[in-house]
Amino acid sequence: MADHWLPPIYWDGDTVAILDQRLLPHKEVVLRCTTLRQVVHAIKKMAIRGAPAVGVAGAMALALGARTIEAADTQTFQNKFVRLCQQVKNARPTGNNLSWAVERVFSVVVENAKEEVCTLKELIRKMADTIMKEDVENNLAIGAWGKQVIPRGARILTYCNAGALATADYGTAVGVIRSAFEADPSVSVISCETRPFLQGSRLTVYELMKARIPVTLITDNAVGTMMQQKKVDVVVLGADRIAANGDTANKIGTYMVAVLAATHNIPFYVAAPRSTIDPILSDGSLIPIEQRDPQEVTHLNGRPVAPRGARAMNPAFDVTPNKYITGIITEVGVLRKPYGKSIRNALQT
Amino acid sequence: MADHWLPPIYWDGDTVAILDQRLLPHKEVVLRCTTLRQVVHAIKKMAIRGAPAVGVAGAMALALGARTIEAADTQTFQNKFVRLCQQVKNARPTGNNLSWAVERVFSVVVENAKEEVCTLKELIRKMADTIMKEDVENNLAIGAWGKQVIPRGARILTYCNAGALATADYGTAVGVIRSAFEADPSVSVISCETRPFLQGSRLTVYELMKARIPVTLITDNAVGTMMQQKKVDVVVLGADRIAANGDTANKIGTYMVAVLAATHNIPFYVAAPRSTIDPILSDGSLIPIEQRDPQEVTHLNGRPVAPRGARAMNPAFDVTPNKYITGIITEVGVLRKPYGKSIRNALQT
Repeated sequence: MADHWLPPIYWDGDTVAILDQRLLPHKEVVLRCTTLRQVVHAIKKMAIRGAPAVGVAGAMALALGARTIEAADTQTFQNKFVRLCQQVKNARPTGNNLSWAVERVFSVVVENAKEEVCTLKELIRKMADTIMKEDVENNLAIGAWGKQVIPRGARILTYCNAGALATADYGTAVGVIRSAFEADPSVSVISCETRPFLQGSRLTVYELMKARIPVTLITDNAVGTMMQQKKVDVVVLGADRIAANGDTANKIGTYMVAVLAATHNIPFYVAAPRSTIDPILSDGSLIPIEQRDPQEVTHLNGRPVAPRGARAMNPAFDVTPNKYITGIITEVGVLRKPYGKSIRNALQT
Repeated sequence: MADHWLPPIYWDGDTVAILDQRLLPHKEVVLRCTTLRQVVHAIKKMAIRGAPAVGVAGAMALALGARTIEAADTQTFQNKFVRLCQQVKNARPTGNNLSWAVERVFSVVVENAKEEVCTLKELIRKMADTIMKEDVENNLAIGAWGKQVIPRGARILTYCNAGALATADYGTAVGVIRSAFEADPSVSVISCETRPFLQGSRLTVYELMKARIPVTLITDNAVGTMMQQKKVDVVVLGADRIAANGDTANKIGTYMVAVLAATHNIPFYVAAPRSTIDPILSDGSLIPIEQRDPQEVTHLNGRPVAPRGARAMNPAFDVTPNKYITGIITEVGVLRKPYGKSIRNALQT
């Protein structure tokens, strides 16, 4: 495998360049988006995915969209910009970082209502840059905090892809793994393939192999037997939205991993920046769960695996109750139970 | 989908005809085996799979093999036949029914040591026929007992394929579902796809759609969320080997389903004929677990899904401790805890 590293999203001049994750690990194809609509499409179709990366993409989409707004005054600009914000926010419903990023960009417009329209457009682009830059900084901080909870020589189980590809770079859960591996090269990783989109086999294994971190791939249904056979010391994975009480929405199957970890007394950590926290929602039952096309389950590589006409359900996320979570690794520290309090404190830091 | 039904294995004159399950549901191709070696190959490569079906196939392989033995006397025949028995037994290690069938066929040779060689060959063929016939009868009995534990209108979750295709016909777990559906057309099924071989999406959904039983396909990692959302009333699945204490080896992922069912207080039933029980093994830790080619995990439809050189583990089965099993549905009734006693009684019936 080539050693070079393509970030999941970056500016190429005034174009948003997105590494098409649907084609990984076999092909490294970069989509060049010049319009908001193209970026939104890339988010919807999961060319870019992972809650923090989608947040960054959303901000960049708004920078592209803002540029095309024709408005004589700031108020007209703001009215038109609100509509773009809605379009971006609606791209995917479950992850919190997208609406967080959109609101952060929008606040630039509100707070600078007295500026010229062309200045607003520049400030929006600057905010998109800031969101991207801070995301990487946050992940480095998450890694630094997170490595402290990883035992020496740990066999770390991770799920889906909470890696560089799910963020602006470095990764959240994979950031913790990178950081732990740097301090202790005897750690190793078990990556679950993560059906139906196979983010584990296609993306996490790809990232870890590039970083030369030992990784073994398993099917999702093998998590139980691995834990039963004492082949897992700790679980670290990402999050798409964390409610005020710590209940966590993440890729479908996370709840299964959490229940199995609890059954086997294995610590279960969620790694995510504070932008993943939605303090408005009191608990996880309120998190909207995206239902994706059943064809993602009935077909593979464009070919059917089930009989024609088979009915399928394809919830993209599930919710893990806070009681199963040993700690939430954020950029300001590892939050512990009771999460209502630790989350409140973290958001005030 | 066509309404006709091809059994997984049958005699076509002196040829063993095997429906190639690797190609289902898209193609119905029948392999014609004229030698023991061909049948053993079909078992190893999973053209036929499912512990009871593999048992039947093993007996038929021996009937083919016996025919080709050249021996002037019974003792010479027996010495040569022992070697064939070993070959067949070694085809796959975890399922109990294969060695059970081989031993049953071999006992014919021992018990009829005074017969002519040509008579022995006929008796072996007859025993293979008996094993096949009894397997279907057992499944009908399993269905009749099993339907009594299925609540009215139940949403039944099943895993892998313990259907007609995993047996001589009718199925064990799917036999229970067929029987329950016949008595109560308001029952419905959730079928887990069952990675990496996709027996759920390819085989169980195919069987249930042919039987016009409502079925919804999910990824294995969605079992937790389905149970959390109270969309599952009861679990029924098959077994590959049951130890004397009730610990049960079955398709990888069964243990995960069992832990999740226990967490959500959902009854968890294993359906299997007594030939699946291995009374020699005191508990499940002694059951040999087949490790299959990692390429089954890293590739799909012959195409790689993981990066080149990715390491993977592919245990084909896991072991569910007896405490998670609500009942074992056999042809002589539903066995309950303590299994040591109920299994002993069932084997003496």
